[in-house]
Parts: sequence; structure tokens; C-alpha cells
Amino acid sequence: MTILEQTVAAIRPADPAALAAARAHQDSLTKPRGALGVLEEVAVRLAGAAAVSPPPLPAPAALAIFAADHGVHAQGVTPWPQEVTVQMVGNFLAGGAVANAFAAQVGASVTVVDVGVAADLPPAPGLTLSKVAYGTADLSIGPAMTAEQVAAALEAGIAVARELVDQGARCLVTGDMGIANTTASAALICAFTGKDAAAVTGRGTGVDDETLARKVEVVRQALRVNGLPGGREGASAAGPAGGREGADGLPEGVAGGRAVPALEVLAAVGGLEHAAIAGFILGGAALRVPVILDGVIAGSAALAAAALAPAVVDHCVAGHRSAEPGHAAALDHLGLRPLVELELRLGEGTGGLLAHPLVCAAVRVMHEVATFDSAGVTDKEA
Amino acid sequence: MTILEQTVAAIRPADPAALAAARAHQDSLTKPRGALGVLEEVAVRLAGAAAVSPPPLPAPAALAIFAADHGVHAQGVTPWPQEVTVQMVGNFLAGGAVANAFAAQVGASVTVVDVGVAADLPPAPGLTLSKVAYGTADLSIGPAMTAEQVAAALEAGIAVARELVDQGARCLVTGDMGIANTTASAALICAFTGKDAAAVTGRGTGVDDETLARKVEVVRQALRVNGLPGGREGASAAGPAGGREGADGLPEGVAGGRAVPALEVLAAVGGLEHAAIAGFILGGAALRVPVILDGVIAGSAALAAAALAPAVVDHCVAGHRSAEPGHAAALDHLGLRPLVELELRLGEGTGGLLAHPLVCAAVRVMHEVATFDSAGVTDKEA
Repeated sequence: MTILEQTVAAIRPADPAALAAARAHQDSLTKPRGALGVLEEVAVRLAGAAAVSPPPLPAPAALAIFAADHGVHAQGVTPWPQEVTVQMVGNFLAGGAVANAFAAQVGASVTVVDVGVAADLPPAPGLTLSKVAYGTADLSIGPAMTAEQVAAALEAGIAVARELVDQGARCLVTGDMGIANTTASAALICAFTGKDAAAVTGRGTGVDDETLARKVEVVRQALRVNGLPGGREGASAAGPAGGREGADGLPEGVAGGRAVPALEVLAAVGGLEHAAIAGFILGGAALRVPVILDGVIAGSAALAAAALAPAVVDHCVAGHRSAEPGHAAALDHLGLRPLVELELRLGEGTGGLLAHPLVCAAVRVMHEVATFDSAGVTDKEA
Repeated sequence: MTILEQTVAAIRPADPAALAAARAHQDSLTKPRGALGVLEEVAVRLAGAAAVSPPPLPAPAALAIFAADHGVHAQGVTPWPQEVTVQMVGNFLAGGAVANAFAAQVGASVTVVDVGVAADLPPAPGLTLSKVAYGTADLSIGPAMTAEQVAAALEAGIAVARELVDQGARCLVTGDMGIANTTASAALICAFTGKDAAAVTGRGTGVDDETLARKVEVVRQALRVNGLPGGREGASAAGPAGGREGADGLPEGVAGGRAVPALEVLAAVGGLEHAAIAGFILGGAALRVPVILDGVIAGSAALAAAALAPAVVDHCVAGHRSAEPGHAAALDHLGLRPLVELELRLGEGTGGLLAHPLVCAAVRVMHEVATFDSAGVTDKEA
């Protein structure tokens, strides 16, 4: 078996007994039942994922920022020059980016992973060199990656997850850096959900109306050129992508009746960081370590991961919902509710990091709060 | 001057120069402009409140849980027995409540303040004894408090704010415990916003349909008996309460043309913890220490504080929006956007505590993130 196949095979769905035990425990604690709202379900889900109630505290957290460049940048989908990717890698390594400030706030480590930056990076503390290519090919002309590149990027992500968990991380947070990567994200979301390009393509870091219109057209062309579903107005017939098995035993997307394996979708319109993040999510889930998803890049990568291993979703927490419209579509498709909704549109892992204290708080309740019996508090529902 | 008058006089509105400097600083940092969404405005507001940019890091935080009982409990507005208030005080002091777990998560201290529990509490570490009365009178029959009780509770809250800041707190978080206190909160919100009782009265800790109907009727009766606006269906004529000055120089609410001073509204339908929390908010603002508001009890108390000193709102952050419908009405009236929206309905300060790392993250950005110039990152907007 390949490392990817081993990883997918190791992922288990939520444990029903742990879910039931966690729900019962929640109801015994000194608070009105359900009074912690969404956080109660977060704690219960993590118990299911860990197969034990209460689940382990998801700390410390480790953020991995997967950096890569995109051939589609040549189509003018963003006003930011491509060299900003490598400049921001330098900023992360120097501790000067928002992700660094947020990581310091929540006590998370920061690892930057070069899976496809279009420049040679010198070795540096905190930088993992796993370059698969100097950026992708232009997805609006043909496949962005070869099958071998997708496999290598996925395995790079799996390796980072394993290494961070080896080093003591008990929660993984996805991060990304790659100028033009919201374009690839939109194309992935179209392909996996069947949604129209205009509905899921957004302004990314803040493009103007003209650039947005071009971006939508580029996404449509990418899907057309690569024979993928979604992208056209009225194209809403494509079914859910997760969990189906094609003739070759691989999960698949659906393109107007034609089965498209998830790996082929990733190769066609993904980015190297999307493939690596999909691997990172699978790698965490295989080790039963929860993964907090950041924004639209992580959401689109999670669609690919879920197509490869549907049970991976049980190990994911949606950190936030970004301002990018495709993100909500991806989270809906995954069945995940975001914890933070503050109109962030930065990436880097910033939204995932902000969610980490909320997830920890949810789990802490399971460990530290007294029961009605132990505290001698009258339970009106007993 | 009384302590209340001194405190109100010390509260300054946001400093325009600091606001402008903070906005300019945000735009120079290595992120697309506006990419941190709501958090950028939080940091800017705190700069205005502190009158310096960047504003001080709002840490460490101190939670004060103001505990009191309510005469209206006799009307059957909740299934929880009144003794749960004192039982939960014991739970807080033993470290077993959700507020304790959340405070541990965010590194906040916890102080419990008895301003009106209907039982004698023995001295204990972490407990401040400032009892004004053994609970309020039944607000559905007449005024809940005397003017003297309101003044004493307000001053108790101011004193707690001063003491916590003296001890090093750089952020205050409001907390509350008082069986039946969502009923008083609903009545306060009606009186200060003119909204109908049915629109702002909720299920609190989870009452059934029958109890909810009774609770709405109790709120209506309380407003009628005390000659206050709101409460009746179609009663939406009452204007904003904040900032007006009556003939006696005091700010006021408006009851069908009759001016009702804020202190009179508090006495009529408030709780001792509402008055104390209003004082706590005023006390923090007077010292230019930001106050994170918890849920509907804090929101209704903040309406009273804002009626006494409109500029106090510049020093407040809405920690979360609770499931209680009156809370959204209160926040709208105050012009505050909540940071956390996770359907919490617990009180104790839990929602405010969850917001604290988000507020700190917002301010950290102002201190720690590199500028485009300093990091050598190309600014597409420069």
C-alpha cells in the first residue's frame, strides 16, 4: 500500500459509544442542558473522534502553513504579484505575520511548509522543505498538476501531520499561503459540489469587480477544459462527491454522469498546497488528532480529503467561516458548522487559530465542570 | 459628588486621534486591508477607548460574577428553585462551574460578588461580600428596589471594578448568577428600548411554552405597574434611552412622553446584580479599562449604564450574542456587534470569557505584525 492508502485505511468514523457517553456526561454537568449551544456538540464530536469520553484536551496546537504558487496567476485573477508568496514565507519565518501573532495568542507552534513556491528557499528554522514543483501549471489551460505531483504533495502533508503529532501536538490547524489560491479553491468547490462558479468565486484578498468577473470566467474555463462538473450557470445537477467508489475502487466526483476520481479533480484544478492540506487533514485524522480547518483553501482541500475518506470529516472542526462565498458552500457540503464568523478573509490559518481556545474551552468543560450530584446543586430536570 | 457621579464624570468618549492613528496603522500591516474583518474594528475601538494607538493588550482579564436573587421568582417564571443561586455560588468558589473552566482556559481570575443573594454566605477566598439586600422585591407588584438599594449596588459594582484594576486586571468581564434574572433583564430591555415584551422575553435556562407565556405576562405587568414604556403589543413608540437629559440633569428613559430617569428604571424592574454590573461597567470605563459584556443580563445592565453615561459604550466589547432574544435587541440599541455567536444561554460570564482571546488577538496584531515596509512585502495598494 502507498502511504496515502495506509493513511486512508487508518481513518475511523466517530465511535458511537464515545458519542453516547459524551452526551450523557454533558447532561450531568452543572448547567442547564444544552446551555453551551454549539460548544456542547463540538466536545461530543471530539469524543467520538477520539473514541473516548471525555476526549483529550486538544492542546497544544500546531499550525502548518503550506505555501505554493499557481500558474493561473498569469490570468490576472489577483492584483498581488506572485512574489508576495515568498515574501510572506519570509514574514512567517521572521514572526511578523498575523498568523504568528494569533499563534502566540493561543500558544500554537508555527511550521511553514514549502510544497510549491516558485523560488528556491534557503533552509531556515521553522521551514520544512518539501517542494514538489515550482508552482502549478495554469489550470485554465489544462491540468494544474500531474498525478505524481498530487501524490507527492498529499504525502508531504501526511508527513507534516505525523511529525507535528510526534513532537507533541494534540491539535492540528491548517494554514496556507499562495497568491491566486482562492481561484483554485473555487474550482475545486465547483467540481466537488456541482455549484456554479459565480456562486462560489469571491474577491479573495479584495479584487475589484472587473477582476472578479475575470476570475469567474477563469474558473468556468478551468472546469470546461478539464472536463469537470460545475462552473456553468444552471449546472447544479452534480451530486455529492464524498464516499462514492468508482470502478477502480477510488472515491470520485461526478461530472455530468462521468465519474471523476478525487485525485483527478485535485490534479486538474487544485494547488500543491490544497493537495498537501488534504494530506495533512488525512494524516491528523488517521492519528485521531483533531484538525481545525481554516478558511476557503482548507474547506476546498477538506472536500478532496472527504472524497478520499468520508470518515475524515468526523475529525475536523470548522474553525471559521470566511468572507469568501465558496467557503460556506464547502462547509455545507461537509456538514460542518463554523465556530468563528468575523468576516476574516486572510488565510494563513488565522481563522483556525482563533477557534482553538473555543475548542479547548468546550473540551475543558468535560474534564473540569462538576456534576449536579458532586456539587450539591439541585437539578430541575432530574 | 457621589461615587457614581464621580465615575460618570470620569468617562471619556473614544479619542478621535487615537482612532485615526489605529486605522492608519491597521492599513500599513502585512495583510490585505480589512482582511481581519470585525477584529480590525475591535482593535481600533480599543485604541479610541484607551486614547492611544496601539491600545494596551487587554490582559490579564478578571471576571466578576455578581450574584443576587429576585422576588419575581415567586411568579413561577423559571423551573429552577431559588436556592440554586447560592448553590452555584458555592460551585464557583469550588472551581466547578463552566465559568471556572472557561476562565482557566483564557487565564482570567474569578471573583464572586454577593450583592443580593437571599441567604447569608460565609466569607471565603474569591468571594466579595457586598450584600445590599436578601434579593429584590417582586417587580411585578411594585418597584424591585429602593433608590438607596440601587445606589448601593451601583457603588458595589464600581468598587469591584476599581479593586480588580488595582490588582492588575487590564480587561474586565461581566458575569452574573441569579435564578429568574432573565425576567428582570427582559423588563429592563423593554423599558430602555421600547420593544414589546413578547419580542424580548426568552426561555432563559430553558423554560417550557406555558412558563414562557407566564413570563411575558409578568414582564408586561411589571412595566404597567411601574409606569414604564414597552411591554404592550404594539408599544414601539418609545425613543432611545441613552444620552437624554431630564429636568434634573439626569439621563432618562421615555415612557409615553413621561421622562423616566435611568436610576428609576433600574429600581423599578432591575435586579441587584443588574445595578452592580452597570456600576462595574461604568467603573471600568472610568479607568479606561475595556469591559467585555457577557449575555442578556450584561446587555440589559449596559443599557442602564449607557443611559447614565452614553460614552461608556466606547469602552465596551460585546462578547457574544446569547440565544435570549432580548440580547440582540439590547446590542442593537447599544450599537455593538457580538464576537461569538454559538447559541450559549448560560450566563456566569461564559460568553464574555470566550471572547477574550479574540479581543487579545485583535490587539496583538497592532503590536506584533510587521508593516509592508519593515517586512519587505509588496503592497498592491501602495
